[in-house]
Amino acid sequence: MTKLVIVGTVAFDAIETPFGKTDKILGGAATYIGLSSAQFDIDPAIVSVVGGDFLQTDIQMLEDKGINTQGLEIVKEGKTFFWSGKYHNDMNSRDTLATELNVLETFTPVVPDSYKDSEVVMLGNLHPMVQMSVIEQMHDPKMVVLDTMNFWMDIALDDLKKVISKVDAITINDEEARQLSGAYSLVNASKIIMEMGPKYVVIKKGEHGALIFYKDEMFYAPAMPLADVFDPTGAGDTFAGGFTGYLAKTGDYSFESMKRAIIYGSCLASFCVEKFGTQRMENLTKNEIDSRLHKFKSLTQYEIEVS
Amino acid sequence: MTKLVIVGTVAFDAIETPFGKTDKILGGAATYIGLSSAQFDIDPAIVSVVGGDFLQTDIQMLEDKGINTQGLEIVKEGKTFFWSGKYHNDMNSRDTLATELNVLETFTPVVPDSYKDSEVVMLGNLHPMVQMSVIEQMHDPKMVVLDTMNFWMDIALDDLKKVISKVDAITINDEEARQLSGAYSLVNASKIIMEMGPKYVVIKKGEHGALIFYKDEMFYAPAMPLADVFDPTGAGDTFAGGFTGYLAKTGDYSFESMKRAIIYGSCLASFCVEKFGTQRMENLTKNEIDSRLHKFKSLTQYEIEVS
Repeated sequence: MTKLVIVGTVAFDAIETPFGKTDKILGGAATYIGLSSAQFDIDPAIVSVVGGDFLQTDIQMLEDKGINTQGLEIVKEGKTFFWSGKYHNDMNSRDTLATELNVLETFTPVVPDSYKDSEVVMLGNLHPMVQMSVIEQMHDPKMVVLDTMNFWMDIALDDLKKVISKVDAITINDEEARQLSGAYSLVNASKIIMEMGPKYVVIKKGEHGALIFYKDEMFYAPAMPLADVFDPTGAGDTFAGGFTGYLAKTGDYSFESMKRAIIYGSCLASFCVEKFGTQRMENLTKNEIDSRLHKFKSLTQYEIEVS
Repeated sequence: MTKLVIVGTVAFDAIETPFGKTDKILGGAATYIGLSSAQFDIDPAIVSVVGGDFLQTDIQMLEDKGINTQGLEIVKEGKTFFWSGKYHNDMNSRDTLATELNVLETFTPVVPDSYKDSEVVMLGNLHPMVQMSVIEQMHDPKMVVLDTMNFWMDIALDDLKKVISKVDAITINDEEARQLSGAYSLVNASKIIMEMGPKYVVIKKGEHGALIFYKDEMFYAPAMPLADVFDPTGAGDTFAGGFTGYLAKTGDYSFESMKRAIIYGSCLASFCVEKFGTQRMENLTKNEIDSRLHKFKSLTQYEIEVS
């Protein structure tokens, strides 16, 4: 039985970075979350929609990676969601060149019955009402995690606040946390967001790592400093997949477990950016993950005696 | 006997932040490094210069804090170095409104004989040739740490490279590391800078923490997320003071010790920004430092079993 239900886009991306350019390749939030969480052998299951132009080989690849695609609707006469973007030289900012919603425009998510008892739900970036619909179809999930972005704050803030009030955890980037809360300090922003509903607030800072806040506690996972970053696309979703994948695997939703979960998220995201698109995540091995976790330990662990 | 010799500015600053504005108050790299390192009871000693307008009460305060000011030259007919700056709303960037070198213009540092056997030397931001002159006057220091800034890369790069080739460690911010190395990735930048001389490269990322590189190893100390940052002035120097103060205290220059040293640096810097100028550092207690070190531990420590 699946332990993690993922809703989010399955898409075609066309990406340009200082290191190169791709034609339409496989992308989308649910794709990255799926590939990342599948590392935990938890039978993650995607709820999404694609068009008749989507490739059967991509569906097969997702299935081969252990991702359940029963909830991936195929609209034969429609076209798959398409996003195109160009990264600036610093790789920290990008311009969106094209967004074609296509089949997403009329997407009404249907959660297969076999998914409904899943303990963990990862709501990837989509319209808040689509996210809400997935929550309502689940039976009694123990951990619902929401990802969103500034776009929905700009055009659907009321809907977004409704879904935020229903989730256990939110993952959001630093600028979005500031926009949502109206507070500049991330400590203050997280407090204000907690009052909106989530017990856990995860703030993603890209190359500067991620923070998780819970009550008056906080914990920090750095990003692994890398010699080369080829393509940041999907890093935030890969992080979310590592986070929720670890929680689904362990069934442990304590704050100590959450700490490990964001370390796993950061670890997996550090692979994602090493190649274009999903390439690196498709070919990642358990040994590579273990070896990078060791690097995380040596990056972060120290001994200090404090009286 | 002093265990740490500090060269750097002792200055008047006038600071404006979104939270307020100060008249001329005590500032300068050596002042912040001194106040921070003095927490380790190591008799830190300043080599610097001030004018006849400098306040006897400020010298007395530094002495009371355990800082040796024998090497602080007073040019009676001159004026103290003055810097004025205004921080933007995000507190991460600032405009320099005024820089009056005054007595610094003709400063020739003289290291008192009683300082010359000190094991650790902290070369605060000053003209590279002034920093070089201090190195040459020392007998046989075990750990020479250099801080510098983009200004010297712009106008005195050759001199700067000479002094860089003579030091054991360099502390530098991320943008400066990129400028000095010509590499964008901090991993690559640190390798290029190591080839210039220093065994240890410390890259300061402000609110995003600090990295230390040594051979093929790296270690990361986060900055403590704070609800309110009142004034970032002196945070980098306070970090450097914590770093070198800890090393001078322990006499342990292993990489493991360096890790603890940047945690102490980050810890002390987190206090510095809580009030205007040196105010917070002047009134800091050992209990407060211990309590914040505990917060650093809970911010950073986790248990993961990796095979």
